[in-house]
Amino acid sequence: MGDNECCMTTHETRFRVRYAETDQMGVVYYANYLVWMELGRAEYCRAVGMRYRDLELNDGVLLAVVDAHCRYLSSARYDDEVAVTTWIEKANRRMVTFGYRMQNEASQLLATGETKHVFLGPGMRPVKLPEKYHSYFGIVR
Amino acid sequence: MGDNECCMTTHETRFRVRYAETDQMGVVYYANYLVWMELGRAEYCRAVGMRYRDLELNDGVLLAVVDAHCRYLSSARYDDEVAVTTWIEKANRRMVTFGYRMQNEASQLLATGETKHVFLGPGMRPVKLPEKYHSYFGIVR
Amino acid sequence: MGDNECCMTTHETRFRVRYAETDQMGVVYYANYLVWMELGRAEYCRAVGMRYRDLELNDGVLLAVVDAHCRYLSSARYDDEVAVTTWIEKANRRMVTFGYRMQNEASQLLATGETKHVFLGPGMRPVKLPEKYHSYFGIVR
Amino acid sequence: MGDNECCMTTHETRFRVRYAETDQMGVVYYANYLVWMELGRAEYCRAVGMRYRDLELNDGVLLAVVDAHCRYLSSARYDDEVAVTTWIEKANRRMVTFGYRMQNEASQLLATGETKHVFLGPGMRPVKLPEKYHSYFGIVR
Repeated sequence: MGDNECCMTTHETRFRVRYAETDQMGVVYYANYLVWMELGRAEYCRAVGMRYRDLELNDGVLLAVVDAHCRYLSSARYDDEVAVTTWIEKANRRMVTFGYRMQNEASQLLATGETKHVFLGPGMRPVKLPEKYHSYFGIVR
Repeated sequence: MGDNECCMTTHETRFRVRYAETDQMGVVYYANYLVWMELGRAEYCRAVGMRYRDLELNDGVLLAVVDAHCRYLSSARYDDEVAVTTWIEKANRRMVTFGYRMQNEASQLLATGETKHVFLGPGMRPVKLPEKYHSYFGIVR
Repeated sequence: MGDNECCMTTHETRFRVRYAETDQMGVVYYANYLVWMELGRAEYCRAVGMRYRDLELNDGVLLAVVDAHCRYLSSARYDDEVAVTTWIEKANRRMVTFGYRMQNEASQLLATGETKHVFLGPGMRPVKLPEKYHSYFGIVR
Repeated sequence: MGDNECCMTTHETRFRVRYAETDQMGVVYYANYLVWMELGRAEYCRAVGMRYRDLELNDGVLLAVVDAHCRYLSSARYDDEVAVTTWIEKANRRMVTFGYRMQNEASQLLATGETKHVFLGPGMRPVKLPEKYHSYFGIVR
């Protein structure tokens, strides 16, 4: 109840690998996949009608990450076009878990991952997500 | 056999949080904890007598990450002195798993994490770690 | 002679500011403007018909930066849509200087800058740019 | 008057190049030199007795960059020990210019640079630097 265990909506966002994101191994440095997850989250939110920036600015609600996990399957390379598919794995008034799948333009799976976040309010204290945002996260009650 | 399930050696490395590492939440951006894990790994290797740079340059062996996980417990802030404690959780000729614990100068636990790596040789193909490096990773046979 | 002092072609590329690019001042961290210049360069090259990746991979020619300059005029903020306009200020067989102008979606000028590069070949030694690439850089003879 | 045209104090800070800072050219990505300048500035301030964090937190004064320039002379590589020497080139109540020189452990000059900053107060408006901080910046009156 109040938990959204499965969510149909997925969103795909695309961008090219930056030179800055590579390392001397000739592939993308591993921490940058977490930056790509952030892009996926931001664009997921925009796609369902909510701007993450407004959540922070207008309502003072932050999504603070408490857990991040990434499985690396193939190397991403400079100038590859990467597609990040993002969805909500689970959400309630207190927290939300996003899932991610990253592919290159040859449809090769690069990585999969999840990030888990809690909602924080003023003073970085946990808060319940304001009701007007529930539907965006697929929280039903 | 050949697996090192538990490893006594831990190594601690310290550094200050850079302004570049913060984000507009006023705390360290979450992907940067993976950069800190890399620092922990590099200094762990140096402490046990192996320079990671030489492994790459002299033997053409790369540590390619296949899995990274981070649990975020408290926020790190600009100019905090962070201590990363690093150890080998598990290692064999094919792969190695590092464990990490990050604290601030008030001994507050900031994050814990693990990264799992495979050894790659020329052409980014999996190789067995050359025997001369076994002891550094605590691989007994 | 051989120098292209003025170049008509400009190219504009657009992207959104990433959360990772902000710092605790609530604005974009200053080093990231140089990353944006790199995006501008890469897209400029693509627009004139040359893929920077191919220059490196196929011909072993690198553009190594020797000078970078940025003037910061207004702060860029998270989720702003930034437009980088890029052009070649000057080019010859040995080096190329790119110019940049960065604006937000309200057409507010964020920054201007220049980067100067030399062409390097095998062993990181200066080389003359292969003739087939001259036209892309506006080098007339 | 009020301008400090030359400043004797220099400060050197040392650190190792991170894997994250390299790119596929096998050397340090050019924007990271600006991050190193930030480290130089922070440690310069600490060395003269002022913590930059306190300036922000206690007095609400920010150093906002208005100009950055870097000349790249030799490539820095992974695991190199870099020494950044920092000094104040010029300072008054409204702004400060830092100078930087970066060397590797073989005393090879990697880069030189300058950053120019204005002091900002609440609402990101220009302010005069509080008098108690003048001496740290070498502002005589």
